[in-house]
Amino acid sequence: MSFSTIGITMGDPAGIGAEIIVKAMEEILRVPSDNVYLVIGDSRWIENAKDLIGSNLKIQTIASPEEVTKVSDILWVLDLKNADPKLIGLGELSPWGGKAAYEYVEIAIELALNRRLAAIVTAPLNKEALHLGGHHYSGHTEILAKLTNSPNYAMMLIDGGLRVIHVSTHVSLREACDLVTKARVEDVIRLAHDFGKLLSIRNPVIGVSGLNPHAGEGGLFGDEEIREIAPAIESVKRDGILAEGPLPPDTAFAKARDGHYDFVVAMYHDQGHIPTKMIGYSSKGPELQTHEFSGVNVTVGLPIVRTSVDHGTAFDLAGKGVASAKSMIQAIRLSERLVVSDQKW
Amino acid sequence: MSFSTIGITMGDPAGIGAEIIVKAMEEILRVPSDNVYLVIGDSRWIENAKDLIGSNLKIQTIASPEEVTKVSDILWVLDLKNADPKLIGLGELSPWGGKAAYEYVEIAIELALNRRLAAIVTAPLNKEALHLGGHHYSGHTEILAKLTNSPNYAMMLIDGGLRVIHVSTHVSLREACDLVTKARVEDVIRLAHDFGKLLSIRNPVIGVSGLNPHAGEGGLFGDEEIREIAPAIESVKRDGILAEGPLPPDTAFAKARDGHYDFVVAMYHDQGHIPTKMIGYSSKGPELQTHEFSGVNVTVGLPIVRTSVDHGTAFDLAGKGVASAKSMIQAIRLSERLVVSDQKW
Repeated sequence: MSFSTIGITMGDPAGIGAEIIVKAMEEILRVPSDNVYLVIGDSRWIENAKDLIGSNLKIQTIASPEEVTKVSDILWVLDLKNADPKLIGLGELSPWGGKAAYEYVEIAIELALNRRLAAIVTAPLNKEALHLGGHHYSGHTEILAKLTNSPNYAMMLIDGGLRVIHVSTHVSLREACDLVTKARVEDVIRLAHDFGKLLSIRNPVIGVSGLNPHAGEGGLFGDEEIREIAPAIESVKRDGILAEGPLPPDTAFAKARDGHYDFVVAMYHDQGHIPTKMIGYSSKGPELQTHEFSGVNVTVGLPIVRTSVDHGTAFDLAGKGVASAKSMIQAIRLSERLVVSDQKW
Repeated sequence: MSFSTIGITMGDPAGIGAEIIVKAMEEILRVPSDNVYLVIGDSRWIENAKDLIGSNLKIQTIASPEEVTKVSDILWVLDLKNADPKLIGLGELSPWGGKAAYEYVEIAIELALNRRLAAIVTAPLNKEALHLGGHHYSGHTEILAKLTNSPNYAMMLIDGGLRVIHVSTHVSLREACDLVTKARVEDVIRLAHDFGKLLSIRNPVIGVSGLNPHAGEGGLFGDEEIREIAPAIESVKRDGILAEGPLPPDTAFAKARDGHYDFVVAMYHDQGHIPTKMIGYSSKGPELQTHEFSGVNVTVGLPIVRTSVDHGTAFDLAGKGVASAKSMIQAIRLSERLVVSDQKW
């Protein structure tokens, strides 16, 4: 294969997926690229999005991935014809939307495992629609882990100089405390270290946050730092990994943003998400219509490259033409960077 | 009394307290003020700090608070003569430093309760020195609550448009989960509401964060939102308080910064501290010498006005003349604003 194909899944048709893909590709295709871009979706929704925003993007609809050639100033669309606009309304939650979104991901994973796609970039799906459509996953990450048979993975958020990898994500805060074990913390530090290679960071400095305020203040406010986190750090350091911590959580992320660490290991969802969204989320004034996300979500530990936007389907914005493609553009660009440096290719 | 006296406690003599007070007062006294500024400390350390940074600040040392007059272009120092430089070394942890720091706070509280001080601004003390000095408190806030006999109080951090009040602070994350009760959440919302008056915010909009990721996603990841937080919000709303939530924690603070909420109620220490320090903490590159804090810590629910810097004693920086007075300047200015609008005066 003399070119890399970036696969982009359309997400729930009722959301802003098609719109932000078209907007993002207008931006991406301004610059000549060595890569080819293939949406896995339903071409009717891509065409509608194109009309909605008055785009001149050249689109080539195909029925089989074999038809893709090295023409990179167009957007290829692998048309699954599985999202009937008579059944699915823009902005409306439905089992058909959830089912279609699942199929895009399923096929993209199969293509990536067979090396027909160099990377997968995912537009958002809706968890409730996914469940209604008969697929009981808490999100993309879990589908990807399951279908690629990857037991050891983690969610990373990247934005504005901050790269945060999470020990746990979609569990209660009490359960998150239980999941802070030496074994898991060590795995996540190693995942960050290995991911550094894909970003051409030879020996990344990894800040490891504590779980408790002030990282437990010597055991005064919780002992997970002493029992689990510090031993995990000691263990990886014996292999030459540059891990530091346990760090007081309140300044660890500001320090990482300022260049102290290449990665930060967050002990739970909001510990990592709050600082990342302080950088990436903005909404001027209480008018919710104007909010915007930047930032990319990467699943680390899969046999394939996968990046994603850092926001949801935004059903409330669907069809209005106002959705921001910022996060999608970043997700596509990051996937290309990871592909270039992916030594497995 | 025809003028207000702002009391400033010197903190642990071995830390950067005296230095940042002198630096801050140089800035504050550039503009004519209706207030008078009185350090509660030991004049030897204030004079040394003045020499260290080559300051021309006019200092008037007194032995009794009665001696203060309405002369506001000088820094008054109530000299307790309790910090012998032969016993305490700059940057060195000692029981004498902890004991002296405690006495500054104790006397300041007494003066404030007797309305001789309109407000207390505290420079940092060191918790370990405090313990060595025989005073077993986890910090200023607990001393203030105890000595003013205030059972119902909370810590608020203010910086860059963000005002965050905490349901709990210096406890383990597991214990913090237990402290999220309807009664406490309701108390903290009411404390924020009442504090709004001091900032001349007539009916503040108060965003109440959830505890769990996505605020529990309808009970899927934890039920504290359903059991405790939502009922607390319903209860205060019946009294006309504009509380909203439970909000997904990851965007609640970015939204508050962007003007959606006058206050945010954080469910635990780091939930509120991480976003505030993303705004207030900066350190350019891995050279720790250059780090800087802004932001003010306010104890809400006391019968007196109290603000504080948002950082520690920084023993490593003491005596070097490089400490930033940014947070101290903000703490003094906020105390003055609170004094002006304090209807109890």
